[in-house]
Amino acid sequence: MTKTVAIDLGERSYDVHVGAGLLDRLGEAVSAIGGLTTAVVISDTTVAELYGRRALDSLSEADVAASLIAFEAGEANKTLQTVGVVFDRLFAIEPAIDRSSLIVTLGGGVPGDLGGFVAATALRGLRFFQCPTTLLADVDASVGGKTGVDHPAGKNLIGAFHQPVGVWIDVETLGTLPRRELVSGLAECVKHAVIRDAGLLEFLEDNTAGILACEPDVMAELIARNVAIKASVVAADEREAGERAHLNFGHTVGHAVEAFVGYGEISHGEAVSLGMAAACRIAVTRGLIEQEATDRVEDALRRLGLPVRRAGLPVGEIWRIMQHDKKALAGQVRMVLPVMLGSAALFDDITPRAVQEAVEYLAG
Amino acid sequence: MTKTVAIDLGERSYDVHVGAGLLDRLGEAVSAIGGLTTAVVISDTTVAELYGRRALDSLSEADVAASLIAFEAGEANKTLQTVGVVFDRLFAIEPAIDRSSLIVTLGGGVPGDLGGFVAATALRGLRFFQCPTTLLADVDASVGGKTGVDHPAGKNLIGAFHQPVGVWIDVETLGTLPRRELVSGLAECVKHAVIRDAGLLEFLEDNTAGILACEPDVMAELIARNVAIKASVVAADEREAGERAHLNFGHTVGHAVEAFVGYGEISHGEAVSLGMAAACRIAVTRGLIEQEATDRVEDALRRLGLPVRRAGLPVGEIWRIMQHDKKALAGQVRMVLPVMLGSAALFDDITPRAVQEAVEYLAG
Repeated sequence: MTKTVAIDLGERSYDVHVGAGLLDRLGEAVSAIGGLTTAVVISDTTVAELYGRRALDSLSEADVAASLIAFEAGEANKTLQTVGVVFDRLFAIEPAIDRSSLIVTLGGGVPGDLGGFVAATALRGLRFFQCPTTLLADVDASVGGKTGVDHPAGKNLIGAFHQPVGVWIDVETLGTLPRRELVSGLAECVKHAVIRDAGLLEFLEDNTAGILACEPDVMAELIARNVAIKASVVAADEREAGERAHLNFGHTVGHAVEAFVGYGEISHGEAVSLGMAAACRIAVTRGLIEQEATDRVEDALRRLGLPVRRAGLPVGEIWRIMQHDKKALAGQVRMVLPVMLGSAALFDDITPRAVQEAVEYLAG
Repeated sequence: MTKTVAIDLGERSYDVHVGAGLLDRLGEAVSAIGGLTTAVVISDTTVAELYGRRALDSLSEADVAASLIAFEAGEANKTLQTVGVVFDRLFAIEPAIDRSSLIVTLGGGVPGDLGGFVAATALRGLRFFQCPTTLLADVDASVGGKTGVDHPAGKNLIGAFHQPVGVWIDVETLGTLPRRELVSGLAECVKHAVIRDAGLLEFLEDNTAGILACEPDVMAELIARNVAIKASVVAADEREAGERAHLNFGHTVGHAVEAFVGYGEISHGEAVSLGMAAACRIAVTRGLIEQEATDRVEDALRRLGLPVRRAGLPVGEIWRIMQHDKKALAGQVRMVLPVMLGSAALFDDITPRAVQEAVEYLAG
């Protein structure tokens, strides 16, 4: 069973397909794209080792001439230098790529973001087809058109908005995902539930075991629902001015926690989970939402293996990082807070006192 | 007297202003752009030495906080490596740039293309304001939104379409332009005349002396007319599918000549001038246009200091390079030929024999 979610972006609309065993049907999907000459798969060494051969075989069976470029795996390699290395290999392919060539990104956030950026900037823009292989990439990076790389001064500072022509999610690839990365992706699912869809929270509560066991049908349903939520937010607000800010729920404190603890020391999802717990606490203290509702959110996070308490976070440092986040405007601190389960709003008057109280709450 | 040409691109429309002394009014122009925090001027060392101080002073007088980043001048530095160097300096600016910051490009094609690409990809896209200082950049790069850098495998292989929010052309900067670069830009003016505006050819014939002396009013008129022509072509065809191909008049053989002789050994304009002479010859031979008309074109090119004859070009090599040009489709050779003065068409059936005859004609 394959589920399809339509991403409505006018002339840049595309479909996200989710199902089991899709990787072996990649060639079929790619050859359905019109006016294609060659395809170039961009992946990292880890994912290429696991799935590169299958992707190339499927393309080859569908008579699509394809090459594979795999760069060294790891978030630390999501840099402009790696982009340069990929370009060197891309422009060395014979026969040379042209404007009808297709980039296929295969992997998690790093191959998707970096490969998408290569697609955005090779010959001033090639079409690209995205095959995410991690839950976080499935539910987050597959919608929104954000591509790019990190710079020592900050994450994702270099990039472009570039929409894929299609997204192809094989839920079976989640089977090789380390547990911690799976759980990290679940934090974004809880986020979507809290800001837009109380029914999804119920689905998460009812299917915890199936999710943690990566049952294909459960995962396909979970991913399709999350993609649809993100798509509805992004379609309403493609350039990230208003509604899209709601996707930052849990990310304001979360980013600060991630930066303080250290990237790699804590997963993005773990940091966002703590950030959601903190934002929920601020919302309860302000009287925006009942504590029973946020208790349900905390319970769901816990049962999915995500942290909602952490001692030793220094309030002053967390506040300082929050103020320097690129999403802050002129020193004010903005946060997205839940106003009921399935609904959130942006508040730009968050005080150091409120953050202090929430961080102390996280310490338990 | 300032002339303004409106570039109509829907929500990405902008104005090109042309006049004498505009550089000292840069701050005024920039501060009129709404929602601005800081401005960063990107230039090369040569242009920064000549005009960087004046640009910064003008911005400062208008209370716009501005910094200057000047990279090493030269076409050889139009690379992804230089982009990396510029990013390092851009992200080191204090206070940090944000999405409301403006990039101001100051200089010829290299600072414009490279700085525009930095603007296209910093924080996934910043607004940029273009101050071209060479005739070629004035009449060519100021319209079309093409930004990017070269790769060892070819020119402009890495880039993005990114429209400026405004273009600000101070014709006085042409006074410091080496004669050969001025003349190189004139080749594009003749090109515009031949493909779209016979009246412009007359203007070039009537004002040769004033143009070569860089008289401000003559140059302002010349530039504004050329910008308007390029804008009309680009507005009709923003993504370079149909009409925009006409701008390749003179460039098919021209690029091949430039590649064969060697970049730097022959200027782009000189190569395009030879390419136009060759294309005119093919058009005459095919009976598309009268020889009297193409004689006028050749005379205009000569009087402006551009070559229309060159011995020693090997036909086989020129043909080979033409076939590998990224604008060729599947080995066919396409060329734009004049069908009367002020009108051109794209032909995709150019034979090696026709090119041979034209290259032999160039040898005189």
